[in-house]
Amino acid sequence: MAGSSYGKLFQITTWGESHGKALGVVIDGCPAGLPLSENDIQIFLDRRRPGRTKISTPRKEEDQVEILSGVFEGKTTGTPISLIVHNTSQRSADYGEIANYYRPGHADYTFDRKYGFRDYRGGGRSSGRETIGRVAAGAVASKVLYQLGIRLTAYTRSIGPITIEEKQFDAQAALETPTCMPDRAASLKAEAYLADCMKACDSAGGVIECRIEGCPPGIGEPVFDKLDAALSKAIMSIGAVKAVEIGDGIQAALHKGSENNDAFMMRDGKVTKSTNHAGGILGGISDGSTILLRAHVKPTPSIFSTQQTVNRQGEEIEIAIKGRHDPVIVPRAVVVVESMAAITLLDALLVNMGAKMENLRKVYQK
Amino acid sequence: MAGSSYGKLFQITTWGESHGKALGVVIDGCPAGLPLSENDIQIFLDRRRPGRTKISTPRKEEDQVEILSGVFEGKTTGTPISLIVHNTSQRSADYGEIANYYRPGHADYTFDRKYGFRDYRGGGRSSGRETIGRVAAGAVASKVLYQLGIRLTAYTRSIGPITIEEKQFDAQAALETPTCMPDRAASLKAEAYLADCMKACDSAGGVIECRIEGCPPGIGEPVFDKLDAALSKAIMSIGAVKAVEIGDGIQAALHKGSENNDAFMMRDGKVTKSTNHAGGILGGISDGSTILLRAHVKPTPSIFSTQQTVNRQGEEIEIAIKGRHDPVIVPRAVVVVESMAAITLLDALLVNMGAKMENLRKVYQK
Amino acid sequence: MAGSSYGKLFQITTWGESHGKALGVVIDGCPAGLPLSENDIQIFLDRRRPGRTKISTPRKEEDQVEILSGVFEGKTTGTPISLIVHNTSQRSADYGEIANYYRPGHADYTFDRKYGFRDYRGGGRSSGRETIGRVAAGAVASKVLYQLGIRLTAYTRSIGPITIEEKQFDAQAALETPTCMPDRAASLKAEAYLADCMKACDSAGGVIECRIEGCPPGIGEPVFDKLDAALSKAIMSIGAVKAVEIGDGIQAALHKGSENNDAFMMRDGKVTKSTNHAGGILGGISDGSTILLRAHVKPTPSIFSTQQTVNRQGEEIEIAIKGRHDPVIVPRAVVVVESMAAITLLDALLVNMGAKMENLRKVYQK
Amino acid sequence: MAGSSYGKLFQITTWGESHGKALGVVIDGCPAGLPLSENDIQIFLDRRRPGRTKISTPRKEEDQVEILSGVFEGKTTGTPISLIVHNTSQRSADYGEIANYYRPGHADYTFDRKYGFRDYRGGGRSSGRETIGRVAAGAVASKVLYQLGIRLTAYTRSIGPITIEEKQFDAQAALETPTCMPDRAASLKAEAYLADCMKACDSAGGVIECRIEGCPPGIGEPVFDKLDAALSKAIMSIGAVKAVEIGDGIQAALHKGSENNDAFMMRDGKVTKSTNHAGGILGGISDGSTILLRAHVKPTPSIFSTQQTVNRQGEEIEIAIKGRHDPVIVPRAVVVVESMAAITLLDALLVNMGAKMENLRKVYQK
Repeated sequence: MAGSSYGKLFQITTWGESHGKALGVVIDGCPAGLPLSENDIQIFLDRRRPGRTKISTPRKEEDQVEILSGVFEGKTTGTPISLIVHNTSQRSADYGEIANYYRPGHADYTFDRKYGFRDYRGGGRSSGRETIGRVAAGAVASKVLYQLGIRLTAYTRSIGPITIEEKQFDAQAALETPTCMPDRAASLKAEAYLADCMKACDSAGGVIECRIEGCPPGIGEPVFDKLDAALSKAIMSIGAVKAVEIGDGIQAALHKGSENNDAFMMRDGKVTKSTNHAGGILGGISDGSTILLRAHVKPTPSIFSTQQTVNRQGEEIEIAIKGRHDPVIVPRAVVVVESMAAITLLDALLVNMGAKMENLRKVYQK
Repeated sequence: MAGSSYGKLFQITTWGESHGKALGVVIDGCPAGLPLSENDIQIFLDRRRPGRTKISTPRKEEDQVEILSGVFEGKTTGTPISLIVHNTSQRSADYGEIANYYRPGHADYTFDRKYGFRDYRGGGRSSGRETIGRVAAGAVASKVLYQLGIRLTAYTRSIGPITIEEKQFDAQAALETPTCMPDRAASLKAEAYLADCMKACDSAGGVIECRIEGCPPGIGEPVFDKLDAALSKAIMSIGAVKAVEIGDGIQAALHKGSENNDAFMMRDGKVTKSTNHAGGILGGISDGSTILLRAHVKPTPSIFSTQQTVNRQGEEIEIAIKGRHDPVIVPRAVVVVESMAAITLLDALLVNMGAKMENLRKVYQK
Repeated sequence: MAGSSYGKLFQITTWGESHGKALGVVIDGCPAGLPLSENDIQIFLDRRRPGRTKISTPRKEEDQVEILSGVFEGKTTGTPISLIVHNTSQRSADYGEIANYYRPGHADYTFDRKYGFRDYRGGGRSSGRETIGRVAAGAVASKVLYQLGIRLTAYTRSIGPITIEEKQFDAQAALETPTCMPDRAASLKAEAYLADCMKACDSAGGVIECRIEGCPPGIGEPVFDKLDAALSKAIMSIGAVKAVEIGDGIQAALHKGSENNDAFMMRDGKVTKSTNHAGGILGGISDGSTILLRAHVKPTPSIFSTQQTVNRQGEEIEIAIKGRHDPVIVPRAVVVVESMAAITLLDALLVNMGAKMENLRKVYQK
Repeated sequence: MAGSSYGKLFQITTWGESHGKALGVVIDGCPAGLPLSENDIQIFLDRRRPGRTKISTPRKEEDQVEILSGVFEGKTTGTPISLIVHNTSQRSADYGEIANYYRPGHADYTFDRKYGFRDYRGGGRSSGRETIGRVAAGAVASKVLYQLGIRLTAYTRSIGPITIEEKQFDAQAALETPTCMPDRAASLKAEAYLADCMKACDSAGGVIECRIEGCPPGIGEPVFDKLDAALSKAIMSIGAVKAVEIGDGIQAALHKGSENNDAFMMRDGKVTKSTNHAGGILGGISDGSTILLRAHVKPTPSIFSTQQTVNRQGEEIEIAIKGRHDPVIVPRAVVVVESMAAITLLDALLVNMGAKMENLRKVYQK
């Protein structure tokens, strides 16, 4: 129980169901004195909003955020920031028939077994709409990090078999293509691939990548709260993610030590590394180079072809899911990955503040 | 700070450095009434002990565990179980020269940046010996789980390019081969591959797989403490792990929805699934089928060939690491993966106990 | 930071400022299957509402609660319950002038020192209105406890020098007298005392007592999360509380061992105690008898007589507080004490569920 | 379960039973770079050692501490500090007969109900020896605080009816009198009172007071982790404590607002208060003046006169406790109160470091 809070010092608590009255998040532990407006948050929420293009669900979700507490005269006060997004366009009628059976690839069955029953409307708490709270909090965390010179960039690395080309990397494209790919040519191919999937009443998966630049060295707490461990939990907690990689990830396991080790070197009087196979983290602690992680996302489980399943009475049945569903989750999850990474990193920065006596003296000594 | 504790109700706190007086773990929250002896724990520790074969370091580490508290008349009392392993064979002289420079692929540099200095002897707290506490606690968690009918099996899935064949799977072999591979033919090939690595003063990585059978449905706490999220953190917190997969993992991202969804069906009057691409977890909650996870482990960073690095004075230097090091971390990390999975699952089982009113009544009503 | 969450498994997170848009609480970890309506919660909130009598502030606070999530078809779903109370009658103009100085006995100065500035309207986050979230959550916790046969009763024990007589104890009176005293004669005397205080532009303190009946033995976690320790934190976290007692409390320190020890005896085949000086808790664990605690509450710091203080510019000034303020905090804090005790006890019950192997088997074994 | 850890960032985990092999504590989160030796800790442990005078038990407990990890070249490394004290003089035979019955005022019965059985030797985990870990950790916390200019002083305020005179206050006396009273005349009276108690086979209680000087303003986290709330939990978690007061405590409830409010004033260009009824904490946050708390301690429950109780078979019996027991717990608990206050305050200082953006910039910006 009590799994809807995340973070030790920068702690977020999300709440809300897909078809309830509203969804939201309480952010507790945001440092005081950060300039913050609803617009700062809305920009992030708009990045996860569906209905922008033909590859996402035609559902229209306005998702307007409102700040209810914790901000006074345009700045955070250090007290809990409560953010709310009212549900406006939910059509529960669409979901009435799923009350009685278990959709393959969804959490219907497991929620029933855990809690005895479930809010079946639109997936209830297990809906993708649950990420609204994460993204709203991610906007706040990102703003704090930005003020400290830390920037996060997440984008789609691949959809089905279509992968971006490193040398075509174009950060602006990631904000403009419907796939969130930072490579316009790859994006066009992916759109064609998705159109085929939809025609076949099927869906696709893909990979999201996130880069964090400007993180100071020393962040992450051995041995269990290592930065890579914390990021893995954060990313894997996003619905549909089935694998997480740090740096070279699965490739590292195939390489030899001589290939995988990053040599230390000096540049401009500072320690740096000649390569970054480690993805910016050594021994669970940031090393000052770019932090790199990847999330592997399964295909949308809601597909329109006929599927076998069982109902609550224990009868085997055939179903065909209706409604409005994205053929791929990846583009809308990009900002969720970026948000969870930002929240995790900010929490780690706060926790690290007391790592050495020197830091305590900086804050407490006159 | 305070990153050496793990778990919410079954909470372990590990301590100790590679070349300090001792290493250990305090297990707080173990249910009372579990029969427990030092031998139960020693069996697990022996599985991570080096020096058994030619592919592991010739260092002899006795690693005899002693129970200091929490067990009375052969049973756990519900109070903290303190376990200690004295360091006996550490030769600090071997490590003297690393005091002054940063080994590539190790945490020397990041510890220095975080804490201002470090215990450099044998890697100090970032040594693989840190896992002794995890494995000792894993032995206890596994025994509790076993009494509830839950069994974990971890083994080496691949070393470098050599992977086991599913159809040759032999659980007994995993306990007997020096590679911990459950496939004797693959193990011989891997041993030859490792011999070549050693000849070349190089090292290899690999993949560890863990299966959990008998886990009841309903375990895992949405939305942040999902079972797969918790397992990912647990596994990624093990030194050298660079990627974690649940079920089909990275393959899921390449598959279509129609391929990746597991159809529900009835068998013997119970809900089950026709396939298990999900790896036993849906929406972050166990579904009653086998839980499957994989850890991708980087090659041993301590290699004997010459490497470029810098020293604490900020000079670029060349080094050649000496001492006794495994050419591959994987076989010794198998029991660490199994232990972290056991600890995580037991904690999740305890947290889930109050998920529904019905459970409270079972425990509290006369 | 992040001090607005409370509880380990039944976790509440409160948010909101006195004169913000709204106040609320997110309850995470409430067992699924509890029948719950807004009315269940409103009944508790009405007990803390001011404006009922001449001894409380004439401010009219409607404080209507709305359930935003976590309840479906009249029952809790196990997912976070978000409760909101909109601020409707706040007149910020009353508080404009306090922006610039520090009210004695209030948190104005300490908030400024901690966060750099503060939401000064009505005390902002340090206002008594912050307890709305506590009481709403307390209503939910109390309902769960009630279903397990556990009942809490809180009431005013004394106001200034006027104390209830044990032999006049009348539980119904506590719900009807404006003082919340369970003794109508004492209440009349206390009302007269308060009238005198008001006439003198002064205020009074008092003592709140809470009894918990029906708590099973075995609740509370040695050594730091003892039940009495957890209750003390819960009660002392209520604004204006300056002392907490368990059982005989301060009297225990004056008694001899032979007077203070409670003899064990058998009644109806069960172990019980002949007296209850311990207040139902031994070694930090409930013993099955009535749990008894007392909170000592300071006088309202907002008084209308002239006071010395300083302003933000560091000048010594004289002030006279205006506005609407209760001459005594005690009666309105009674339900807050009861709520915090209920939340703490439910959390402790949930944490205790895995204390012995026997309990795990009850929940997990077929 | 898992109640043997305390603190969020400076986290201690204690373990050990009265008659087990050893007792100890793991301190996780101590800032790196603190000079620390075994002697620093031994000085604190010696203050709780019995056998020094005729008013404490003639048991000889050497209680020599050993540092097992976390200190390198005389300084803390930031990794867990494991401290152990071996049990040497325990005579279990003395306690054999208590295996079968429940001592009044002790935790025998409640441990049995919670865990199903207990380590009965010397009280097992509920023994006063459990505080060894607290005091060892308190020594470390106190040293960190001292380096930041914060000093704690605890002493006996009263024993039975004998209370110190404020104007006779002599800090040095507290370290020298067998009662730990900072008033030599009162101490002599208390010794005579205790001699009478012992003659009557009875025991006494008393009050411990602790002052914290030099604490910066701004420490403590509203609304649940207020500094006074955290201190109350810390102090109430010490065995035998039955009430906790902050500042004027129970007297505050009897005073009027005009008497209880502390006027703010300027001194040497800084904000201060003309009085300190609040005990240095306003709204749960330190205000920069002396923090004052009091713990009320019950009389030793082990008395030598005959008592009524029941045995595990549910029979009413008469017992007479034998063995070696202090007639009063207070003097030996003084250093425990001081230690718990130090641990709590250091943790609060660490948590507060990220309270405002300004602090993050101090630590992270170049």
